[in-house]
Amino acid sequence: MIKNNKTERHIISILTKNQPGVLSRISGLFSRRGYNIDGLTVCATEDESYSRMTVTVSATEQTANQIVEQLKKQIDVIKVLDLKSGDVALRELLLIKVNAGAKERSELCDLCTIFKAKALDTTQSTMMFELTGNTSKIDAFIDVLVPYGIIEMARTGGAALERGKNEN
Amino acid sequence: MIKNNKTERHIISILTKNQPGVLSRISGLFSRRGYNIDGLTVCATEDESYSRMTVTVSATEQTANQIVEQLKKQIDVIKVLDLKSGDVALRELLLIKVNAGAKERSELCDLCTIFKAKALDTTQSTMMFELTGNTSKIDAFIDVLVPYGIIEMARTGGAALERGKNEN
Repeated sequence: MIKNNKTERHIISILTKNQPGVLSRISGLFSRRGYNIDGLTVCATEDESYSRMTVTVSATEQTANQIVEQLKKQIDVIKVLDLKSGDVALRELLLIKVNAGAKERSELCDLCTIFKAKALDTTQSTMMFELTGNTSKIDAFIDVLVPYGIIEMARTGGAALERGKNEN
Repeated sequence: MIKNNKTERHIISILTKNQPGVLSRISGLFSRRGYNIDGLTVCATEDESYSRMTVTVSATEQTANQIVEQLKKQIDVIKVLDLKSGDVALRELLLIKVNAGAKERSELCDLCTIFKAKALDTTQSTMMFELTGNTSKIDAFIDVLVPYGIIEMARTGGAALERGKNEN
């Protein structure tokens, strides 16, 4: 039997009751077991009594399955889905501020057009961009901006919904 | 002396060391004290040894100040900023799936144009949209979609960067 030991990004969507303490308990589970969270997003859902957590973890197939099983056992957790497998629309949001003098500005605007990013703010020596996309697109955009000097960035964890008619 | 007792949305940006357990400790602080988190985003920053947490809380001015002071005392917390006060670019990301037959589709496309949303997926009976913007724009978009029937939605907490040259 061949095991898949490759570490990949898994997006785990967790529907929980909207109770104080749930986030703390779930993030405690991850840290106690030493799972490395790349990103995490918590938000209200269409129904205020529930929250949806979207956790991005780098893990092997086997570890990801373990995480899902352990999450399912938690109080207040209603549904857990590893979105790696499903047909999902996954989007992250990036805000990034880079060094940009008058010379660099037009180069950066070109990159902005290619990636369909939005320029949010410009000063004499900096520019700020907004970009949404899947993880690899966001990574690629950050990569091309590195040479200009990244001053700071804020990146949300993923928001994900299953395509088609189904509810998550 | 007039105290401001109005509950408002505060966006608190927390720069921490990228250590397992930090998220759990900080979210524990919020839940123990009964602060109501509306949204939370954790992500890597430009430097891998740090994480940035962006927490959205509904609180009075006074409570928000308390939260900031308590966060500053935590181990592994490097910097805390209440972005309510500052000049910041704040963006959230929304994915939303609504009921939409052939009849509703063109109405929804109009809304999409007005809000500059993106249609991500369409089936015979549903449509899925992506929208970025500040909190009130996202709220407004959700409001106009309610009559169609929201099947599900995922919303990230805010990602925020200070405008201008400064680092957060």
